[in-house]
Amino acid sequence: MPRTAFFVSDRTGITAEMLGHSLLTQFDDVNFRRIALPFIDTPEKAQEAAARIREQAAADQCRPIVFTTMVDESLRKITHVAEALTLDFFEIFISPLEQELGRESSHTVGRSHGISNFEEYKTRIDAVNFAISHDDGVMPRDLNEADIILIGVSRSAKTPTCLYLALQYGIKAANYPLTPEDFGAHTLPRLLLPYRTKLFGLTIDPDRLSQIREERKPGSRYAALDNCQFEVSEAEALMRHVGVPYLSSTTRSIEELATTIMHRTGLTRRTF
Amino acid sequence: MPRTAFFVSDRTGITAEMLGHSLLTQFDDVNFRRIALPFIDTPEKAQEAAARIREQAAADQCRPIVFTTMVDESLRKITHVAEALTLDFFEIFISPLEQELGRESSHTVGRSHGISNFEEYKTRIDAVNFAISHDDGVMPRDLNEADIILIGVSRSAKTPTCLYLALQYGIKAANYPLTPEDFGAHTLPRLLLPYRTKLFGLTIDPDRLSQIREERKPGSRYAALDNCQFEVSEAEALMRHVGVPYLSSTTRSIEELATTIMHRTGLTRRTF
Repeated sequence: MPRTAFFVSDRTGITAEMLGHSLLTQFDDVNFRRIALPFIDTPEKAQEAAARIREQAAADQCRPIVFTTMVDESLRKITHVAEALTLDFFEIFISPLEQELGRESSHTVGRSHGISNFEEYKTRIDAVNFAISHDDGVMPRDLNEADIILIGVSRSAKTPTCLYLALQYGIKAANYPLTPEDFGAHTLPRLLLPYRTKLFGLTIDPDRLSQIREERKPGSRYAALDNCQFEVSEAEALMRHVGVPYLSSTTRSIEELATTIMHRTGLTRRTF
Repeated sequence: MPRTAFFVSDRTGITAEMLGHSLLTQFDDVNFRRIALPFIDTPEKAQEAAARIREQAAADQCRPIVFTTMVDESLRKITHVAEALTLDFFEIFISPLEQELGRESSHTVGRSHGISNFEEYKTRIDAVNFAISHDDGVMPRDLNEADIILIGVSRSAKTPTCLYLALQYGIKAANYPLTPEDFGAHTLPRLLLPYRTKLFGLTIDPDRLSQIREERKPGSRYAALDNCQFEVSEAEALMRHVGVPYLSSTTRSIEELATTIMHRTGLTRRTF
C-alpha cells in the first residue's frame, strides 16, 4: 500500500519537493504517492490544503507525510494537521539560524526562487542562450566567451549537461561532438585547438550508447554496437592522448555530471 | 563582515545548497560567503572538509554555518566540528521518518540525484531534445507530442522556461514566438490552431522587454520602447481574444514560471 507524501509551500514548492525527495529515496522499499500543493499563500488555500491532507489520511487509513516550507507562520499553523506527520523545514532551521546570526529572519515568502536580482537573472538567461547557440558543434565567433566546452561522441549527454550548467549555475557551456571524422588524426579538431584548456570530455558505455542510439535511429550503422564501441574507444583514446579530462555519463545523472564537472574544473556558480 | 556558509555533501551537494540557500535568503541583511564542498565520500575527504571549516572559523573569528546532507553517519560525524553551527538535514529528518514508516533508512549515499531509473532518465533527455528541436517556432511534425506550447513575444522567457520544464520535470514543451506578422488578424497563427488547448502564454512588461532587447540589438527597431509596447499589447489582446491563459515573466524567475504554469494547467512531473 502506498504512503502519501505532500509537498506544501507558499511559493513554488521546489525546495519542499527536493528536501522530501532526498529523504524519501532513503526508504526505497516504500511506495510513495507524491502530491504537490504549491502556492498556498492565503488562509483559504491553507485551509483547503489542510482539508486535502485530512481527506487523504482518511482514505489511506494512514498518516500522510507532509514536507513543508511555509514561511508565513499563520499559514504554516493552518497546514499543520494532527492527522499527518509534518516535517517543517523552516520551523526547525530558522530558529537556530536566528540565534546564530543574532537577528530575526525576514519571513519573506518565496524569496529563494524569486527574481530578486535582475543581473543574476540575465546571467542565467545569457548562459541558456549561449548553450543553445553553441550546441552540437555550432561554434560562432564568441566561443572564447565559453566557460567550458564539452566534447564527446553523439548521445553522450553533452547537451542536457550544458543546459543544466546554464540554467542552474549561469555557466556558459558549449558542446562539440566527436565524430568518426575526428578520429585517426590523434589530434583535436582544429576548431577546438585554441580552447584546449576549456575542454572537458563525456564518455559512455558502448552498450548503453547503442541502446540510446537504437531508439533514435533503429537498425542504423550509427546505432550498431560495433560502431559505438569503435567511436567510444577512439574518443577516449583521443581525449587521453591530448590530455582532456573526461567522465562517464553511463551511471551519472545530469545533476551529477554537472556538479562533478564543476568540482573537477574549479568552475563556480555565477548565480544562486 | 561576511559570514561563511558551507554546503557539505557526500554527493552533488545540490540538496544542501538549495536548502541552505532557502534559509539564508531569510536573512537578507547578512552578507554570506558561500563555499560548496561536494563529493565528501571518504574519511580523508571528511577530515579535509573539517579542517577547511576550522580554518575558516579561525580566519573569520566567527562560526561558519554548515549545511550538510551527509548520509553516511561515520563521515557525518567527522564533518561536525565544534567551531561551526552545523545544520544537518538528514540527521534531523531521517529519524522521525524512520519512526513513522516503521523501518530503517537505507543510508544510501546520494540516491536522490543518481541515475536510479533509466526510463526516467530517458524521459528527461527526450524532453530536453524535444524542447531544443521545437524552440522558437521550429515545429516539426511531432508537435502533437507536446505537453504544452508556450507562446509570446520574442524575449519573454519562453525558451528557458521550456528547458526548465524539460530538465526538471520531463515535460515536453515547445515554444512559438508571436511576431508582428501574427497581429491584426486577431486569430492564432494557422500552425497553432490544432493545438489550442496546449497553448500557454508568456508576457512581459514593455519597459523590461525593451531593456532586454536593447542589450541584444542596441538601437534597433526591435528593441525600441514603442515597438515593445505595441508587440506586448497586441500579443496580450490576441491571447485574451482567443482565450489562451498567460502569465507575466517580468517579476518571476524561471522556476516560478515553470511551476506556476504546471500548477495552472494541471501538468504533473514525469520525473523525480
